[in-house]
Formats: sequence, C-alpha cells, structure tokens
Amino acid sequence: MIQTQNFKDIVDQYKVIFFDSFGVIKNYQGLVPGMNKTFEYLEEQNKKYYIVTNDASRSPIQLADGFHKIGLPTIKYNNIISSGMLAKEYLDLKVHDGIVAYLGTPNSAHYIETSGLHTLPVSDINDNNIDQVNALVLLDDEGFDWYNDLNKVVNLLRRRNIPTIVANTDLAYPLSTTDVAIAIGGIADMIENIVGKKFIRFGKPDSQTFMFAYDLVREKMPVNKKDILMVGDTLQTDILGGNKFGLDTVLVFTGNTLPKDAETRIASTGIVPTYICDDAVVDIYPAYFHFQSK
Amino acid sequence: MIQTQNFKDIVDQYKVIFFDSFGVIKNYQGLVPGMNKTFEYLEEQNKKYYIVTNDASRSPIQLADGFHKIGLPTIKYNNIISSGMLAKEYLDLKVHDGIVAYLGTPNSAHYIETSGLHTLPVSDINDNNIDQVNALVLLDDEGFDWYNDLNKVVNLLRRRNIPTIVANTDLAYPLSTTDVAIAIGGIADMIENIVGKKFIRFGKPDSQTFMFAYDLVREKMPVNKKDILMVGDTLQTDILGGNKFGLDTVLVFTGNTLPKDAETRIASTGIVPTYICDDAVVDIYPAYFHFQSK
Amino acid sequence: MIQTQNFKDIVDQYKVIFFDSFGVIKNYQGLVPGMNKTFEYLEEQNKKYYIVTNDASRSPIQLADGFHKIGLPTIKYNNIISSGMLAKEYLDLKVHDGIVAYLGTPNSAHYIETSGLHTLPVSDINDNNIDQVNALVLLDDEGFDWYNDLNKVVNLLRRRNIPTIVANTDLAYPLSTTDVAIAIGGIADMIENIVGKKFIRFGKPDSQTFMFAYDLVREKMPVNKKDILMVGDTLQTDILGGNKFGLDTVLVFTGNTLPKDAETRIASTGIVPTYICDDAVVDIYPAYFHFQSK
Amino acid sequence: MIQTQNFKDIVDQYKVIFFDSFGVIKNYQGLVPGMNKTFEYLEEQNKKYYIVTNDASRSPIQLADGFHKIGLPTIKYNNIISSGMLAKEYLDLKVHDGIVAYLGTPNSAHYIETSGLHTLPVSDINDNNIDQVNALVLLDDEGFDWYNDLNKVVNLLRRRNIPTIVANTDLAYPLSTTDVAIAIGGIADMIENIVGKKFIRFGKPDSQTFMFAYDLVREKMPVNKKDILMVGDTLQTDILGGNKFGLDTVLVFTGNTLPKDAETRIASTGIVPTYICDDAVVDIYPAYFHFQSK
Repeated sequence: MIQTQNFKDIVDQYKVIFFDSFGVIKNYQGLVPGMNKTFEYLEEQNKKYYIVTNDASRSPIQLADGFHKIGLPTIKYNNIISSGMLAKEYLDLKVHDGIVAYLGTPNSAHYIETSGLHTLPVSDINDNNIDQVNALVLLDDEGFDWYNDLNKVVNLLRRRNIPTIVANTDLAYPLSTTDVAIAIGGIADMIENIVGKKFIRFGKPDSQTFMFAYDLVREKMPVNKKDILMVGDTLQTDILGGNKFGLDTVLVFTGNTLPKDAETRIASTGIVPTYICDDAVVDIYPAYFHFQSK
Repeated sequence: MIQTQNFKDIVDQYKVIFFDSFGVIKNYQGLVPGMNKTFEYLEEQNKKYYIVTNDASRSPIQLADGFHKIGLPTIKYNNIISSGMLAKEYLDLKVHDGIVAYLGTPNSAHYIETSGLHTLPVSDINDNNIDQVNALVLLDDEGFDWYNDLNKVVNLLRRRNIPTIVANTDLAYPLSTTDVAIAIGGIADMIENIVGKKFIRFGKPDSQTFMFAYDLVREKMPVNKKDILMVGDTLQTDILGGNKFGLDTVLVFTGNTLPKDAETRIASTGIVPTYICDDAVVDIYPAYFHFQSK
Repeated sequence: MIQTQNFKDIVDQYKVIFFDSFGVIKNYQGLVPGMNKTFEYLEEQNKKYYIVTNDASRSPIQLADGFHKIGLPTIKYNNIISSGMLAKEYLDLKVHDGIVAYLGTPNSAHYIETSGLHTLPVSDINDNNIDQVNALVLLDDEGFDWYNDLNKVVNLLRRRNIPTIVANTDLAYPLSTTDVAIAIGGIADMIENIVGKKFIRFGKPDSQTFMFAYDLVREKMPVNKKDILMVGDTLQTDILGGNKFGLDTVLVFTGNTLPKDAETRIASTGIVPTYICDDAVVDIYPAYFHFQSK
Repeated sequence: MIQTQNFKDIVDQYKVIFFDSFGVIKNYQGLVPGMNKTFEYLEEQNKKYYIVTNDASRSPIQLADGFHKIGLPTIKYNNIISSGMLAKEYLDLKVHDGIVAYLGTPNSAHYIETSGLHTLPVSDINDNNIDQVNALVLLDDEGFDWYNDLNKVVNLLRRRNIPTIVANTDLAYPLSTTDVAIAIGGIADMIENIVGKKFIRFGKPDSQTFMFAYDLVREKMPVNKKDILMVGDTLQTDILGGNKFGLDTVLVFTGNTLPKDAETRIASTGIVPTYICDDAVVDIYPAYFHFQSK
C-alpha cells in the first residue's frame, strides 16, 4: 500500500489551493467528514482557495448554496470555477445572435443565457427556427428525452454547421458506492463520433479551466504557479490537468481512486501526483490528541 | 464525375452475388426501382445470391417477408445472412445457461432465444436476477427507455463480468433523404467507452459475416472467393469488408455514397471498390430499346 | 490469486487444439519447458493441432524449422497458420499485376511473392516505378531504415491510392523478461493515423485468421466449433479472437499475462477465457511421481 | 468556391494579431510573397503581433533569425511563442533534479536546459543513469536514430514512471508541394499507444499555447480576447484552438488548406473560422494600382 502524507503539512507550503468538488469536498452522501475543518483553517490562515469543478448543471451561485447546506458557509460563488463558466464565456465572445440550442435542465440553461442570445431546449427546435440556431451546448444529462432529443441533435448537426460546446467532459459520475450515471460528456463523445465533427470541450484536464482560476486569483494578489496546489481525487482530470498547467498536485482517496488501486493506476497511466494524502482534511490538533489515526 | 460501368456486364462474370440490403435493394421509400429485374435475372441464370445485412432487429424470416411485400418474391429466408445470426451462433456456442439480457424490441430478442437460455429486457434486470445474467446483447435502438436502460446497462457491466455482444455495428441509419437515426452500434461505442471493456461485434466489415455466407454457399456448390461478387453502397462496411475477405466488390450510388462524393471518399479512405455502378439493376434490354438512360 | 486448472483434463475434451506460438510454446529463451510432452501426447492421441500466429516475418516452412530446432520435431509447416498467409491470399485474390511494395526483411517478402506480382522494398520505390505500385504490405519491423522508409511510405500513400495490408497487428513483442520491441503493427497504426486511410489488417483477434485454420481442419475431418480449443497467453488477441469465433479458450501464464495480474485484467477488459491454466504442458504422470509442482 | 475577404479590412478591426508561422508567413520555399508588407503595416500602425508556432526544434532566438533571413527584420524573439517554451516552463516548474532525456537535435535540447537539470539524448541513457531520468521530452523528428532510439524510449517508459512531454503535436509537416515528413507528434502518438500512458502535449489547438501569448500581451497593454485575431492555415490547430480560446479567427489559403477544399473541410469538421482570406498580406495600395489580382 502506498505511503500517504499529512495534508496540513502540504497546504502550509502554498498560498493558494484549488479543490475539486465531488470526491474531495463532498460525495453522494454529503460532506466528506472533516472538510469543514479544512475551510476553517484556510480562512484563519488567510489562504485563497477555489473550487474548480466540471459540474455545468448549476450556476456558481447554486453550487455555493449547495456547499452552505452541507456545512461549508465560507465558500462563496466567486470561489467557484465551473466548466459551465467557460462555456458561457465562449458564447459571449463567439456567438453574437440567434438561438443557442441546449441539452440539459432549464436550470443549467438559465445560467448560460447572455444578452442577445436566446436559449432553446433541443426539443423545441423545429423547421421554422432551425436556421436561427447558431450554437449547440451540451450541459447536463438530465432535463430532456434521450431517445427523441439525441436523435434530434444528430440531425441538427447534419443540417447546421454550428459550434457544439461540451460543458462537462466527464464520461460518468458516481451515484452511490456501487452505481454511476452516464454524464453528458459520455453522450457528447457518442454524438461527435456519429456526426464526425469536432466539438469544443471545456473542463479539466483542459488547461483553460485552470487558467480561468489562475486569472481570477492574480486579480487579487501577485502569485505564480509555484504558489498554487491542486487537490483532486481523479488522475485523468484533476492531477493530469494540474500537472500540465504547472501546478503541484495532491491525490486524495475520498473519491474515484481507492488506496489499493493507486499505485497500479499511477504506474499504468503515467500520471504522477506530487503528493498523495488519505483526504484533504486539515487536522490542527496533533495526532496524540485523538485515538484513531486516519 | 467518376465513370460507372454496366452492372449486368459485371454480374455475368460471377457465379455468386452477395448484396447489401439497405441502400442497394431497398431504401426508406421501398424498393430501389428496377431491382425486381435483377432478381428475376439471377433466378433465370441460376446464379446464387445472398443478402448480407447488419440488420439485427428482425429474424431472416421477417426480413424475407419484408422483401416479398416490396415485390421481391424470390428472396427466401435462407438467402439472408444477418449479423443477428452471428450473435445467435455466439450465444449457442458460448453461453450455456442463465439469463441473456438485451436492449432491443421483443421481436429482435425472440430470434436469439435458444434452448437453455432465457432472454430478458435490461429493464427487467433487478437485484434478484442480476447474478444469473451471463451475457448482454445489443440488438436494436428501439424497444427500451434510453435514459433508464442505458444507465442500467453501464451498472450491470460494472457488476457482472460477462460478454457483451453487439449485433449491429452501424453508427446510424437513414430515415429519409435528410434525416438519420442513431443505431445500436453508436450506442454500443458509448457504453464500451464508459465501462472500458471490449465488446464482441458482429456485422460488416468484419470477415465473420462474409464467412458465414461463404460457408452456406459452399454447402450447396463448389465455389471459391474469385467466383463471388459483393455489391454495396457503403465503403466502410460493404466494400472494405468484401475487399478484405478477398471478394471483388461493386460500389453503387443508390444509398450512402453519392456520385459527386465517390471519388473524394475513395481517395480519402483508401477503400477502393473493384467496380463502380449507378445501381445494381440488371437491364436485359439493350439501351436503344428505351428512351431514357439510367 | 486465481485458481488454475489442469491442462490435460481440458485438452481431453476437445478434438482439435489451436495454439498461439510466442508465450505458449516458446519464448525468447526457447522452448517453454515441458511443451515437448504436450505435442507427444497430441500425436499419441491422434488429436489435430494448429499453430495460429501473428508472426509474418517468416514463411510456415521457416517457422516449422524453428520449432524443430527447439525440440518439437512433429510440428509440420502445414500445421502452421500465420497472418502472413492471409496477406498472401489477399494479394493472390485482389492484386493482379504491378509491384507490391513492402516493409520487412527480404525473407518475409520472398514468401508473399506470387506469380505476376513483383515485390520491391519501399527503399527501391522511385519516380520511375511508383506508378506501377499496386499494393503495400507491412510485414516486419526489421530489414529497412525507419527514418527514410517510413517517411517514404507516408508519401507513397499520398500519391498512390492503393490497398495497404498489415500482416501483423501486434503493437510490440517481448525481447527478454524486461524489454520489448516495437512491432510492425504499432508502426502501421502511426502511418494509418498520419495518412488518414483504412489499412487491411490480418491476424488475431480478427476472425479471418481462425477461419483459415478452421477451413484447413475441416478439409481433413468433420468437425465443428465446439470441438476446438484455442490456447493463448494474450487476452486481447488469442482469447478475444477465439471467443468471438465461438471457440472455447484457455489462458496460460507462460507469456504476456502474469498470474498476479490475470484477475484484474480479465475484469477490466471483459475478455473472459473459458479456462485458465498455469501452462499448456500435458503431464501424463500423476503428480506424486515427481517432486516439484509446476 | 468560397468567397474570401480582404485581410487588411479585417486586421484594422483588431489591436493584436497572432500569426501561425508555417503556411502563413513562410513555407518550404521561404517567405510567402507580400508578407513583408503585412509586418511593415503592423509596425506602422503600432499593432502588437505574436508568432504562435508548434515548432519546438529551435529556440525563439533562432526562429527570429530565420525570419530576419527571409526579409522580416522586425520580428523579434520576444514576439515568438513556441510550444517548446511551454515544455521548458513545465520542466522549470515540475522537474527539480536529475536527467531530462530527449528525442531531437542538440539544438532543440539546448533550449530546454534549465538550472539543475541535465539533458541527455535518449541514445546516451544506460543502466547506470536510467534511475536518474526524471522526465522525457519529445522535441524533434531529427537528431536521433529512429530504430534504436524509439525502441529505447518504449523500454525507458516501461521501467521509469516519469512524465513525457510532447513539444509539437503536429502529425506531419510539408517538405514541398507534394511531400510531407512525419513530425515528432506523430511518433509521440505511436509511443503513447504502445506504452499505454498519458503524455503531456503542448501546442495548438491546446489553449495553454494561446494563454501564454495572451499573458505576454497583457503585460504590455490592457487588452481582452475580443481585441485579438488569430491567423492560420490549418483548421484543426490554428482555427480550432483560436475559436476555443475565444478569439476571432482567419483561415488563409497559403498553406495546408486549399481554396477548393475549404468549404468541404469546414463542413465536415465543424471548425468554422470567423473570416476566410486568400492570404495574410496587407496590400495598402488599392487594387487598381497593380495589374494582377492575388
């Protein structure tokens, strides 16, 4: 079994911490036990932190609300970078008028609405409005009828030569200890393969996600990449992306990667984290104050 | 524009003809005009022929019925080789008991039922019977709820280490001159990618399909590969598969490949048919007997 | 650790045995210890056997010579099916004149020479003869200058719209317990990716290889797929291919798959052998006659 | 044939111009005719410009020298962003000691040398120093023996669990109007496929390249993405990357994309440039002053 390090010792070496959300801060059961202590410590130490997530199903404000409900009151909407924000920035910069068709819930679509653009669920595209569709955004795996709307998307992309934006590149997400659900990223791969066109993907491990967070933090304080630590549970997204962007990285065992598989997975993928920790919990009391070790 | 040859001149050089079905014999509107003359000619000349199709949604008997209804009374069920027959052979040989779960219509499943095996739609798999599931077969894109049952398939394959058989490798199929529908082969690619396992695929261009037909014809007459002609409308399945199996091949323009695109597609894929014809119609009257050329 | 079965008990249930060569019968050090006993037993019991190999670098006669030299005198050239034989059959059936350019040793090329066809190493292709080149065959990773000739192949395929045949689909092959070498199949994938054309591949797991052997055995005796056992060391080629063709399969631990990895690899690939054995050695004396267990 | 626009009219709308190098500014014959006028105009108008290139075979200083020699004296080394610079930044941030092994010329390696790191060609790796190798960088397709060193790289990556950096993602590059050469990006894909590990790639279309340039320009002047124009000849790198980063893009016909193919390629890839121009030449004299049209 791989030897892990104490998370607090690592955190103390950096000025800014980027956290993945699912599998690090929370999981399908709610808060990862002890993570409240981590955010208290960060506030106390006046360290900056950002949640960098591939969840495009909700706006940062809604995501922040979710954190408040599980006992993390200090995480504000402007501490959150989601791949949905990159999709929104793309639309702002590159699509100037017409309809943006989407797959997802109304909630996810509400967030990407920008002045001048009209969002419409794929189910509402018809012969009268198809020529005004200037972009397609894949936001969430829920909120639409898979059979009808995925077939409709294939035919939309055969008729209209428009950019397709994928706001979450994950193939699947966990529902419980045993079950997963197909994510919109997995569906996007299928559609891209069938229509033979290149989609525009936002989300880790792509560097644009990290750059967005990096730009935000530099607005507030002078910092460089050596001062930033990326914490994640998934080698292929959090650790690969963090490494490539030039950040030091911590792999934690509270999500996708189990302690027993870590060594094999690191060797077989070639994705090597800077550090490995059991979890991202900062325990400010020395180990001899409590009985059980983590 | 590419120069085409007369189909009858080519057919006359071979003893056995393999035809793709959709895009060659019929299309979404019914019979490809004139194809009845082709089959009359083949019967008259006592040439053997087989329909080699990736359609696993119906049994050969039902497929033959379909041909009879559009005016091709001579095509018998035993002239038809479908990728569903290969899936059935696989189950007969390799799965000896338990449940075969499937995605598709009851019609498609009825056909693969074999003695000792119980077929069950994926929607009926539950905690009580999941341990008896010994194979999964992907048959058709219809007959199930995509959202619920595709997610269920992903979790079934995470729990049970069983072979998954894909009985139709096509990504999509045409519904009209403009629209297509996602085929079960496209869905299979997505699931395989998400669960990270190797599925067993039957259908053109794989040689096992051609071998099945070749074995059948050799039971009836001595023949070798030089005597057989494969006729198809799709470079990636019919022509690639026929070429690789060692057959001479004809590309026709009544389906997936348009005359204006043929040259570019052949050059860009490197898949070169032996011959190119406008259609697979045998016109036994010389051209000066009728006014319009094809 | 996975529980293994006795190879002899399994062999006794089948009439015909197909063996992979490298990793089952021999390895980089020569004969896999005890395999001579297996072939003695098969001769004695009058069971048919075939060596089904992806090695296209030598003719069956040369491959048989190699077996004789390591102490297997009964393996004849007509017991050997190599992917090179399928490449040769393809050329016989589909390429009628002109030059066949190749990458490989003169030895590998000598074998594919057929009446009417002239083989030429890629290095000898020039502006005067390029228009006569009607096929390209990738045979072996040795016998040519990689830098010059791989670049030449890319430009040949940009100028000439010809079939490219890959006679060995393996990506790499073992040189010692620690080292491997890049095989021509790995090089073929790179070239195909760069030129964007579809190559024609022969070799396991493709069913055409198994069909070739199946046809040969049926010429000698009435047999069906249930009577044949495929023995191999590699899940992705031997076991996947055998399973798909409808044969029962044995995974052995004398080559690519180590006992400690078997369970994980089977679970993660979904490729499940019918049986698992330590090796393919038939030990006719009961275990208490010798001191060491295998 | 697609309708093109006047390049000067477009340039006048932006404050900063990013140019691809090969196929836009120069080609295998030297300067693209008229491009000197473009850079004179940009200097005159005081517009900022950057050359954003996937060429990692030389340092920015050497690349600038190359531009001077073909008549572009104003392009300075600090106007040039190469994917090699990103590789160098990665090594600076993430590899703290030991040996960096490389494939490429000594010239390409000289540039990535950083304090504390020792660069060594793959050919010099041996049993004594292999344990000090802490990174591998793929820089150039020249400067090494393909057969020996590519096999050595595969075995190095099987023994050492180290990051592999690909400093040029192009699959091939043009040598003349007819011929291309395999680039290190094509070789990298083959090695990655054989060893089954994830490499870290720098270069267009990846956003990190554009971000590097964007950061440089923001150090000099306040600017946002709407003020920047990306000019390139290749849909898959320049245009896809520019679009995704949120820049407006110009496709020019002086390199990889021919006027006759542009429409089909745009439709088939779904990569749509903001503008299309014959070339990136700024012609400040009206068309009636000279006789020939471009």
